[in-house]
Amino acid sequence: MKYHAVKGTRDFYPRDMAIRNWIVDAWRRVSLRNGFEEYDGPIFEYLDLFRAKSGEGIVSELFHFTDRGERELAIRPEMTPTLARMIAAQAASLPRPIKWFSVPRLCRAERPQRGRLREFFQWNADIVGTDDVLADAECIFVVLDFFREVGLTPQQATLKINSRSLLAALLAARGFAPDRHAEIYTVLDKRDKLPPEVYAEKLESVVRTPAERSDLECMIQAHGAGGLDEVAELARGNEAAEAEIERLRELFKLLAAMGVADYCTFDMSIVRGLAYYTGVVFEGFGQGALRRAICGGGRYDQLLTVVGGPPMSGLGFGTSDVVMLDLLNEFGLLPAEAGVSKHVDFQVIDAAGDQSHVVLRIVAELRRAGHCAEFSYRRGNLGKQLKQAAGQGAKWAVIVGDEYRQRQALAVKNLGTGEQVERSMDSFLADPVGQPAATP
Amino acid sequence: MKYHAVKGTRDFYPRDMAIRNWIVDAWRRVSLRNGFEEYDGPIFEYLDLFRAKSGEGIVSELFHFTDRGERELAIRPEMTPTLARMIAAQAASLPRPIKWFSVPRLCRAERPQRGRLREFFQWNADIVGTDDVLADAECIFVVLDFFREVGLTPQQATLKINSRSLLAALLAARGFAPDRHAEIYTVLDKRDKLPPEVYAEKLESVVRTPAERSDLECMIQAHGAGGLDEVAELARGNEAAEAEIERLRELFKLLAAMGVADYCTFDMSIVRGLAYYTGVVFEGFGQGALRRAICGGGRYDQLLTVVGGPPMSGLGFGTSDVVMLDLLNEFGLLPAEAGVSKHVDFQVIDAAGDQSHVVLRIVAELRRAGHCAEFSYRRGNLGKQLKQAAGQGAKWAVIVGDEYRQRQALAVKNLGTGEQVERSMDSFLADPVGQPAATP
Repeated sequence: MKYHAVKGTRDFYPRDMAIRNWIVDAWRRVSLRNGFEEYDGPIFEYLDLFRAKSGEGIVSELFHFTDRGERELAIRPEMTPTLARMIAAQAASLPRPIKWFSVPRLCRAERPQRGRLREFFQWNADIVGTDDVLADAECIFVVLDFFREVGLTPQQATLKINSRSLLAALLAARGFAPDRHAEIYTVLDKRDKLPPEVYAEKLESVVRTPAERSDLECMIQAHGAGGLDEVAELARGNEAAEAEIERLRELFKLLAAMGVADYCTFDMSIVRGLAYYTGVVFEGFGQGALRRAICGGGRYDQLLTVVGGPPMSGLGFGTSDVVMLDLLNEFGLLPAEAGVSKHVDFQVIDAAGDQSHVVLRIVAELRRAGHCAEFSYRRGNLGKQLKQAAGQGAKWAVIVGDEYRQRQALAVKNLGTGEQVERSMDSFLADPVGQPAATP
Repeated sequence: MKYHAVKGTRDFYPRDMAIRNWIVDAWRRVSLRNGFEEYDGPIFEYLDLFRAKSGEGIVSELFHFTDRGERELAIRPEMTPTLARMIAAQAASLPRPIKWFSVPRLCRAERPQRGRLREFFQWNADIVGTDDVLADAECIFVVLDFFREVGLTPQQATLKINSRSLLAALLAARGFAPDRHAEIYTVLDKRDKLPPEVYAEKLESVVRTPAERSDLECMIQAHGAGGLDEVAELARGNEAAEAEIERLRELFKLLAAMGVADYCTFDMSIVRGLAYYTGVVFEGFGQGALRRAICGGGRYDQLLTVVGGPPMSGLGFGTSDVVMLDLLNEFGLLPAEAGVSKHVDFQVIDAAGDQSHVVLRIVAELRRAGHCAEFSYRRGNLGKQLKQAAGQGAKWAVIVGDEYRQRQALAVKNLGTGEQVERSMDSFLADPVGQPAATP
């Protein structure tokens, strides 16, 4: 073909679109039942908005352009800057807590690879305007409510939890000045994402002595059932760290009350790469062949200030359709129905070949009443049309044939059971699925 | 504020998003019940794809950029080129007719004005791979099925129908060579969209003699009930024109059979601006203050060939959320519920202030069962929390209070009727809305 989709983007043919809708619908359903309201922003923003949040380095990672008014604009690579901008603009009037979700289309100028495309959909949910540990629990619960909704068990997907405040308190106690923490977090975050020798090199670049290196290595070992107790040992007498450990213990109790403790473990090696996290941080991991992060999030205190808004504590998470569908496919959790793009209720058939006006009348009335009704442009014979109807998955065939010419009646055939009844046009249109005899 | 949305784009705060979802859901619902399958493509394509369809002139009307691989890309300003590309790529294997719809986000580099933004959502539906007049009727019916779905009456919105084939046959008979038709269509299309003197000037630029001008002016006068008969008079002996008039008569009969004739009129002045239409063309108009086109479409024969595909006849239409919401607002057809972004079923209240674990357990189980359940992070007194629950529109309040401490029971209050019943935790969680006493 002369033209094709740009590499790293996807064409959504009806089956692909049905699958995308299946996952987006699940995200929406879970968000709404958790009391989140949907929001969205423009697909492009001022490039400076993204610079403000992420620094000049972000520019090469996004698609940017200059409009006729010489404005530097960029397609959004993430939703958070837009969220911060929108909340900051109405900070004074929005009731707290602000519980918002979005399913943005995002674009990144990266080299396409498995699980990483140049265009994808993300699920974001944030709770802003509170620093209550109940919000930490609720935000994490939303992720796990989705895991359960799509059938992911704790054996297939887990959530690892840590705290930037705890890391910061421990780092400070070991003599790492606060202005060094951000670069240390960025490196620690890469521990399980880079080949060991590359990670070792990066770690070397941020420590000043072998003692510092072993301090860091030791600190992030703690994980699992006894991990929090181990860290409590390390933290004895460190008030800030002890307070945060108490908060984490409360968080795990709340998650247990919500019935999702099986998914959750404490893990000091979860650091997250983004500079702006200040409290709890968490990452979901898929087990099996695709052992990698499938979602992540955390608490931030200064997100709004980078766009000129007031300080306001909040937390949120994000996950993408690409990694999530890979994972669900790996575990066979994508049901066959997810890819069905058409659900025909009634196939209306012109058995005589000269009743297209009657067929159209019936089709129009059924559709107006909310049923999916189909008909064929070709006047094939009845047997062929019935076969087509069944092939399309239609539930009923409505046949305009001899009964209609003789007494204005329709033959209504249940394609599931094969049962066929005769109904008058009026009674059928008044209640197409209501007659017991015509209901599967 | 330091940052704001780019002019001509919109922030969708929850209420705005609920309204956008309301109209998009209506588009989807109507499309699906008419047997259309949803598709989508990438938000950006090769710039050449848009050039191929619309010529070099399109470049200044869209947002384009060069990626790191020096590829010229552009944000899609319309969906049709992507549709053509996708169908062409699978032309051999897609079953006909192809009935597809999409709700793309589109961007155009134009000066923002009322009804015209730089970013908007469009509803597109196309039937490709058939030239049957039944497809013309079905495609037009979809638009009108939507009008009825949102309550637009024939007094508020109408659909004007014409045919490019008819225009072409009449033009040819009057000596306008086929290679002049495209520029003539472009001018005629502007008759009701430009000030009369500007239109007159444009018309002058494409005619060669006063006779040609009056031929054109006369030809496009015909409209309304007798319009088709008038044109039939003009067309006597012109076989191509007569055949197309017959086809239009059949189309109007089919639309009458479908019960939507009240919305439809024949109008020779409907020409549409796009070069690629070859058959029926139509435009929807809103009455009232906003007298302007609210949707448009038509039949095309060569759309796929411009992207290197096989010739394949089809037709389709498009409409945007911006004009449609303007119109619905003007007629008061946007219900108050359309803007409601949150629907709380249960507000779970910690009446004692020390039962947050119990509250969370109930909230988590209700959500898992599909109900929207909320709770407050603040431990306010019962009266205040009940007031909040009612303010949020919650249907029930579930109170964890003395009954729970004494006998593990919950007080379930119907916030609509004020009726309150006591239920055991187990019975409530097993069937939260099932007890007659607790149902509104």
